[in-house]
Amino acid sequence: MTKRAENMKILFAPESVAVIGASDNPGKLGFHVMKSLTEGGFSNRIIPVNPGSARIMGLKAFPSVTDYDGDIDLAIVVLPAKLVPGVFRECATKGVKGIVLITAGFKEIDDPAGAELHEEIAGIVNGAGIPVIGPNTFGTINLQADLNASFTPEFSQLRKGSIALVSQSGGISHLLAFLAMRMDVGFSKIIGLGNRLNVDFDQMVDYLMDDSDTRVIMLYMEGIDNPGRLLETAKRYNGKKPVIINKTGSSTKSDQASRSHTGSMAGSHEIYMSAFSQGGMLAVDNAESLLDTARALLSCPIPDGPGVAVLSGQAGPAMAACDVCEARGLKIVPFTGRTQQKINEHLPPLALRTNPVDMGPAWYDSSAIEEIVRAVMDDDNVDGILLFMMFASANADAVKGISDLLEKWQQRKPLVSCILSPPGIWDEQIKGLEQSGSLINYPTPERAANAMAYLWKYRKIEISRKDIL
Amino acid sequence: MTKRAENMKILFAPESVAVIGASDNPGKLGFHVMKSLTEGGFSNRIIPVNPGSARIMGLKAFPSVTDYDGDIDLAIVVLPAKLVPGVFRECATKGVKGIVLITAGFKEIDDPAGAELHEEIAGIVNGAGIPVIGPNTFGTINLQADLNASFTPEFSQLRKGSIALVSQSGGISHLLAFLAMRMDVGFSKIIGLGNRLNVDFDQMVDYLMDDSDTRVIMLYMEGIDNPGRLLETAKRYNGKKPVIINKTGSSTKSDQASRSHTGSMAGSHEIYMSAFSQGGMLAVDNAESLLDTARALLSCPIPDGPGVAVLSGQAGPAMAACDVCEARGLKIVPFTGRTQQKINEHLPPLALRTNPVDMGPAWYDSSAIEEIVRAVMDDDNVDGILLFMMFASANADAVKGISDLLEKWQQRKPLVSCILSPPGIWDEQIKGLEQSGSLINYPTPERAANAMAYLWKYRKIEISRKDIL
Repeated sequence: MTKRAENMKILFAPESVAVIGASDNPGKLGFHVMKSLTEGGFSNRIIPVNPGSARIMGLKAFPSVTDYDGDIDLAIVVLPAKLVPGVFRECATKGVKGIVLITAGFKEIDDPAGAELHEEIAGIVNGAGIPVIGPNTFGTINLQADLNASFTPEFSQLRKGSIALVSQSGGISHLLAFLAMRMDVGFSKIIGLGNRLNVDFDQMVDYLMDDSDTRVIMLYMEGIDNPGRLLETAKRYNGKKPVIINKTGSSTKSDQASRSHTGSMAGSHEIYMSAFSQGGMLAVDNAESLLDTARALLSCPIPDGPGVAVLSGQAGPAMAACDVCEARGLKIVPFTGRTQQKINEHLPPLALRTNPVDMGPAWYDSSAIEEIVRAVMDDDNVDGILLFMMFASANADAVKGISDLLEKWQQRKPLVSCILSPPGIWDEQIKGLEQSGSLINYPTPERAANAMAYLWKYRKIEISRKDIL
Repeated sequence: MTKRAENMKILFAPESVAVIGASDNPGKLGFHVMKSLTEGGFSNRIIPVNPGSARIMGLKAFPSVTDYDGDIDLAIVVLPAKLVPGVFRECATKGVKGIVLITAGFKEIDDPAGAELHEEIAGIVNGAGIPVIGPNTFGTINLQADLNASFTPEFSQLRKGSIALVSQSGGISHLLAFLAMRMDVGFSKIIGLGNRLNVDFDQMVDYLMDDSDTRVIMLYMEGIDNPGRLLETAKRYNGKKPVIINKTGSSTKSDQASRSHTGSMAGSHEIYMSAFSQGGMLAVDNAESLLDTARALLSCPIPDGPGVAVLSGQAGPAMAACDVCEARGLKIVPFTGRTQQKINEHLPPLALRTNPVDMGPAWYDSSAIEEIVRAVMDDDNVDGILLFMMFASANADAVKGISDLLEKWQQRKPLVSCILSPPGIWDEQIKGLEQSGSLINYPTPERAANAMAYLWKYRKIEISRKDIL
C-alpha cells in the first residue's frame, strides 16, 4: 500500500484532529466545524488551532499545528485562501496524515491567482503524500467513527449504515442526507470532493471498495477531468460493490454551470452515461433515485431476468406500476400454469387474476393472500416481485397475512413493495420487515417499480461484465 | 337545477345517513363504514339498517329503510350484490336522495349476471333521479362536512382543505390520501367512482365546479366510456377551476388491466392526453404529480411565460433543476442588465452569478441575499422563481434573510421552492410561509421544477382557451 493510501485510511479514522481556523464565533465556519466534531461524539483528541485564542469551546487552543506537542492525524482547514500555503507547509512539517480543506477561492474563481494558489498548495501536499479532501467543500463524515469533519453538525443525526456518498455538490450532499434522515436510511461515509486538489472520484472509489463499513457506493457528479481513471478503477474491482452514479448536465444550462462551478468540463451527457455502464457503474436519473437504488441494492437480491410479477391489494397502484415497468424495460410475465391455477383457486373470476394480480377479493382471507404470494414467489417465470398494499382498518387481515409470510421468507428474489398506511399505523412494522431483509418499501408504486428497473439494469451490467471476461 | 343535481348536493351534505348492511363484526365492511361515520365526527343522524340486529355500535338499528320513520337523505349500501335490487327499490320508495353503493360484483365480473344486475339497479335509481356513487367503491368523503361515507375510517385524519379528488381507483385514492396526510395537504372531498352506475367523471366535475369548498379538482382515471361528455363539461366551465388529470394505461398491460378492471376501454394513451389538453384539463404523469401540481395551483399565481430564474444557496440543486426545466419546456432566461448589476454587486466574481445563481458566497450576508432575491422577483424577464436552500446551522443567516423577505412578499409570480433541513428544524417555518401564501415547498429540487413546469403547461392551456374564444 502506498503512503498516500495508508494516509487516506488515517484521514477517515484519525486519533487526533486539528481544526485550523477554529472559532467561538457562530459567524465563522470554524465555529460550526468545532461544533460538528464535539457534538458529533468524536471521542479522540480535538485540537483547536487559532493564534488569537487561548481556549475555544472549552478546549486549549494552539497558535499553530507546530506548537502542539503530540501527533496530528487530520487537519481541517477553515482559513482564508491566502493563508493556506503557509498552513499546508506547517502541516507537512508536522507530519499531518490527511487534510480536509473547506476554504474556497482556488481554481473555481475567475481570478488566475486562484488557479496559481491551487497549484502551489497541490505541490506541497503531493510531495508529502498527504491526501486532501477539497478545497471548497463542506467536509467529510465517517459516521461509523463518529467523525463529523464538516461545517454541518446536523450530519451526525444520520443513522450509521452501509451506504457511502461521494459528491461534487455540497447542496446535493445535504439534500440526500436530509432525505435519508426522513427515510431513516443509514450512511457509512459522506465525502464532499469539492475542487479535488488531489483526491478525485477514482481515489474515493478505490478507498471505499476496501472499506469494510461500506457496501454500496453512490457518486454524485457534475463534471470530471479524467473520466478514464474512474472507469478503470471501477472496472478493476469487477463489481465487488455496486457503484451508482448520478450526473447532472443533461441540459445546456447545467452543463455550462458545471463548467464554471467545478472548473472542469461537463461534456456530452449521453457519452458519459454509456461510459459509466461500460465501466460497470449504474447510472441513475436523479439524486432521489441514487438513494432509492442504493437502498434496493443493499436489501435485495439482484433479479436474474426482467420478468416481474405485480401483486396488489388494489388494482390502481398495480396499473400505475405496470406503466413504469414497461417504459423501463421490465416485463410483466405470464405465470406458469401451476401458479395461475393456485391464484384461480383463491380469487373469484374477476379479470385481474393474471399478472398483474388484484388481490382485493381475497382481503378477508389472509391464508389465500399468503398462498397467492407464495405461489408467485416460487414461479420460475418470475424474477422479481412488486407488492402493493394501501393499508387501513378494512384490510388489516390481508396485510397481516402478508406480514406473517414475509417474516418467514428470506428474499430469494427481489421483493420491492409500496405498503402504505396512514402515518404511524404501520410504519414500525414496515421498518421491521425491511430490517429483517424481507422486502424494501417505497412511498409510491412508481418509485418501487423504478427501483426494480434499476436492479434489473444492474443485473444487465453484471451480465455484460461476465461476457467480457 | 334538475332533481338529480339537487340530490347530488344532498348526497354530500345529508341530514341523515342510513348504513344498509351495518354490522358490529369487524370482519364486515358494514362495521368499518359505521366506524367511519361515528368516529369521523358526523354530527347528523346515523341509522344502522340490519334485519338481524336491534342495536349496532350503540345505535338503534332498523330491519329496513322503510321501517325508519324519519327522512333518509343518504343510504350507504354494503350488502351482497344479489340483495341490492330489492334494497334500491326500498330506497326509491323511501325517497332516499343519494346512494353510495360499496358492494362489488356487478359489471366488473366475468359473469353476465353481473351486467344484468347492473342494468336492473340502474333502471331503478335512474327512474327515481337518485345519484349513485359506485358500485365497487370504497365510498366518498366530504371532509368539510365531517362525512366519511367510506369503509376507511382513517380518511377522517386528512386535513380539511380545498382539493377534491375524483378517482376510479380505491388504491390510488388511499395512496394519495396517505401521502397527503404525511405532507399535511388538505382535501375538500374524495369520491371513489367505482363502476359508475350513473355518476361518472363529467357529473362530478359539474358538481365540483359549483362546490364552494373546492378550488382545485384532481381526476384519477383508468378508463372511460364517454370521454366526449367529460371534455364538453370541462370546456363549458371555461377554466373556472383547474382540473388536473392523471390516467394510467400508457402500457399494454395496464391498458388491458383497465379494460378488465373497470369494464370500459382504456384506449390510446396519446389520444387521451391530447384530448384532455384540448378540453382545458391539465394532464400529469403520475399520481404523485397530481398532488404536487394541485398544491402549486392552489398556492401560486400562474406564470405568464416560460422564463424561470433559479436561485440557490448551493450550485448542485440548481443544476439538477435546470436539467428538469429544460426537458420540460421552461427557459432559464438571462436577467435584465439592472438585475445582473445588482447580483454582481453582492456576489464575488464567481461564475454562477448569471441564471442559475449560486448564492453560496452571500451566505453570511442576509441583506445581500434579500436584495438578490428581490431584484430577480422584479425582473421583467422572469415569469417564475425556483428557490433552493439546503439549510443547516452554518447558513441559518441566509435562510433568515430569505424568510424575512418572503413574509412581506405576496407572490406576484410563482415562487416554488425546495428549502430542506434536517427533520424538525425548519419544517414549521416552511409550513408558515406556505400558509401565508409566500411560496410552495417540495422535498426535492426536481419535484419543485416539475411543479413549475406544470404551472406553465396550465398557462399554455389558458392561452389556447382564449385564442379559441
